[in-house]
Amino acid sequence: MLAEIITIGDEILIGQIVDTNSAWMAQQLNDAGIRVKQISSISDDRQHILTALAEASNRADIILITGGLGPTKDDITKKTLAEYFGVGMVESKEALENVNRIFAKYNRPLLEVNRLQAEVPENCEVILNKNGTAPGMWFNQEGKIYVSMPGVPFEMMYMIEEEVIPKLKTTFTLPVIIHKTILTAGEGESFLAEKIADIEDALPPYIKLAYLPKLGQVRLRLSAYGDDADLLKQKIDEFAARIVERVGINVVTQEDIPLEKALLNMMIEKGLTLSVAESCTGGYISHLFTQHAGSSKVFLGGAVSYSNQLKESLLGVKDETIEKYGAVSEETVTEMVAGALKNFKSDFAIAVTGIAGPDGGTPDKPVGTVWIGVASARQTLVKKFTFSSKRIQNIERSAMSALSMLNTLLKEY
Amino acid sequence: MLAEIITIGDEILIGQIVDTNSAWMAQQLNDAGIRVKQISSISDDRQHILTALAEASNRADIILITGGLGPTKDDITKKTLAEYFGVGMVESKEALENVNRIFAKYNRPLLEVNRLQAEVPENCEVILNKNGTAPGMWFNQEGKIYVSMPGVPFEMMYMIEEEVIPKLKTTFTLPVIIHKTILTAGEGESFLAEKIADIEDALPPYIKLAYLPKLGQVRLRLSAYGDDADLLKQKIDEFAARIVERVGINVVTQEDIPLEKALLNMMIEKGLTLSVAESCTGGYISHLFTQHAGSSKVFLGGAVSYSNQLKESLLGVKDETIEKYGAVSEETVTEMVAGALKNFKSDFAIAVTGIAGPDGGTPDKPVGTVWIGVASARQTLVKKFTFSSKRIQNIERSAMSALSMLNTLLKEY
Repeated sequence: MLAEIITIGDEILIGQIVDTNSAWMAQQLNDAGIRVKQISSISDDRQHILTALAEASNRADIILITGGLGPTKDDITKKTLAEYFGVGMVESKEALENVNRIFAKYNRPLLEVNRLQAEVPENCEVILNKNGTAPGMWFNQEGKIYVSMPGVPFEMMYMIEEEVIPKLKTTFTLPVIIHKTILTAGEGESFLAEKIADIEDALPPYIKLAYLPKLGQVRLRLSAYGDDADLLKQKIDEFAARIVERVGINVVTQEDIPLEKALLNMMIEKGLTLSVAESCTGGYISHLFTQHAGSSKVFLGGAVSYSNQLKESLLGVKDETIEKYGAVSEETVTEMVAGALKNFKSDFAIAVTGIAGPDGGTPDKPVGTVWIGVASARQTLVKKFTFSSKRIQNIERSAMSALSMLNTLLKEY
Repeated sequence: MLAEIITIGDEILIGQIVDTNSAWMAQQLNDAGIRVKQISSISDDRQHILTALAEASNRADIILITGGLGPTKDDITKKTLAEYFGVGMVESKEALENVNRIFAKYNRPLLEVNRLQAEVPENCEVILNKNGTAPGMWFNQEGKIYVSMPGVPFEMMYMIEEEVIPKLKTTFTLPVIIHKTILTAGEGESFLAEKIADIEDALPPYIKLAYLPKLGQVRLRLSAYGDDADLLKQKIDEFAARIVERVGINVVTQEDIPLEKALLNMMIEKGLTLSVAESCTGGYISHLFTQHAGSSKVFLGGAVSYSNQLKESLLGVKDETIEKYGAVSEETVTEMVAGALKNFKSDFAIAVTGIAGPDGGTPDKPVGTVWIGVASARQTLVKKFTFSSKRIQNIERSAMSALSMLNTLLKEY
């Protein structure tokens, strides 16, 4: 069963927003055993929408469309869908009730443009939008399913989870796709490939292996396609086990989760707590941890000590240390990580200080110079890194290197 | 001049990664006066790549391709491009030197798979990859330009900025596209549309207006297409000025920048400093500010006070306040914001405490309950919000609401 995702809206094509919806939808579809053939972002243009719908219907059985359903004039998805199917528009009673309900809730007058949001092509089934005024629309055209949804992420997400996936499951008999991901850290893509070359060569044709490198980590993803879930699972587990054994200590986890989530899980299991002292990462490491449910079991918090004054008052870094060695130095990061352990009373602590750029570099300490310290009561690990001239990259790489160092310390704990 | 972006790799189609490359490339192309017609994500599949190339070449003059250039077996872009153009492969001397240089730098042995990375289709010009081993490739096929680049963001970005855009500028005479964005906060999309309906109706056909709503903000984007840059600029400025006047106090900035960057700019101009006390946002607000160059002029830092203990020790929240009213309460957030102002010695402070979920809710304080305080020495603003049951959404909405409150306080300052 193949699906295609079409996102409509000039804002993606001019790069004003990143299309996060498609990745999320693709995950949901894959989990349901529906393979995504293509994701296309197209403009709010009648002819382009018509062409994209026709192309997608040649390749896929299920076409999910987001965007272009707002109340304003640049939103033309709905009437273009009616044209594509050759039908007229009707006012949906349930969609209008929903619009009325939402305007009543916020105590605002209903405008004509809002009432028009309840109009839909006459051949659709309305999918209720609990979080907004634009209704979703489900079309069954000669066995092919088209679903049109708003581009606002939480409106679309609710519809997919509560309505679209369940309806697809009752409409089709779905095949099985199983993915298994092995997260590795500290070894490059080609060295991993060399290490497991013979295992890769032995893979049956229905299992594919992909290497996904990112910021010092490589994910090895095995994907199996077929009908027999038990057989696929057994085979994929067998090959995963061989790879894990071969790759050894560079394996972080066999779940498809981010590195920081794997670390949280390890620490929850061992009953350990963590705090941070972030300078150049500016809260990013804290955010990485705290975006995950349950992080409060491990993560106590910490300091974003952007100014030198806060490094001293919150972490107890000595004035003379910063004076003598500078804020970006082995001595400062060592005091920062010790201060975090002591002041925040955690079992482990991470400290980062560096020059994220683009300004602030010197010949001795160019932009991209970062010192990272990770410590427990027993052991302190301090390393210097030299990253790039790009601020965001330096923040992300600093964070990932700190997490990788925490992984090392936890493994040895 | 039309361009199309094709990203190759199953990881996007199974939703394992979000395609951030395309948005960035689209921005660069638009800035250079090249309109992006479509962005397509396709699989590492020979036939699919061939079809996508053919479809794109029917619609566009410039086709930018990322992904599938790694040293491993799932990477088939290069040989599929050779097939598409009907040519053989040759070893590129400069690409091989680059591979050798990188392996020498990291002091690692060169593997056969790495040497193969220097092989390219014989009809291409090599684009040097300063940040990695996979060369970029530039093809000119009967006046249409195809560029193949690695999917690793910083490798691709360097190539686009330093090589591809300059080369496109010398290859084509580029038309002009001008965008102007007005960032508004605190008013919904349809109310804004109603307010400016007559201005929108008066727009000439070569100027389009789009509404981009997100988390309590709406961006109004005017786009003008043509040849005469001065005329387009004059016209777009004229209409922008009319909209800004009409929308009034809900306008935050006329630059296309994020809300927090607009706030940083305002504060830099006024010489003001900021600190934060983050509980449920867990470092996210700090990260929003510190991702921007120059944020250290304004942002002193703050506390990620995830645990109650840190709320007390870092912010001076009284034990009895948390005991009596709870960590998520008007009283606690008021003490948090006052503590941040005092302990971190900033002109303004933001404090957030809430239940991000999915656990931790009670009948009185369900998941999504968030208290936000924003204060200066003169004024304190405290508000309660009730968001959703989704953790990430609650974190993002809390941050955006806090920023919106800071905007209000700054406007009144």
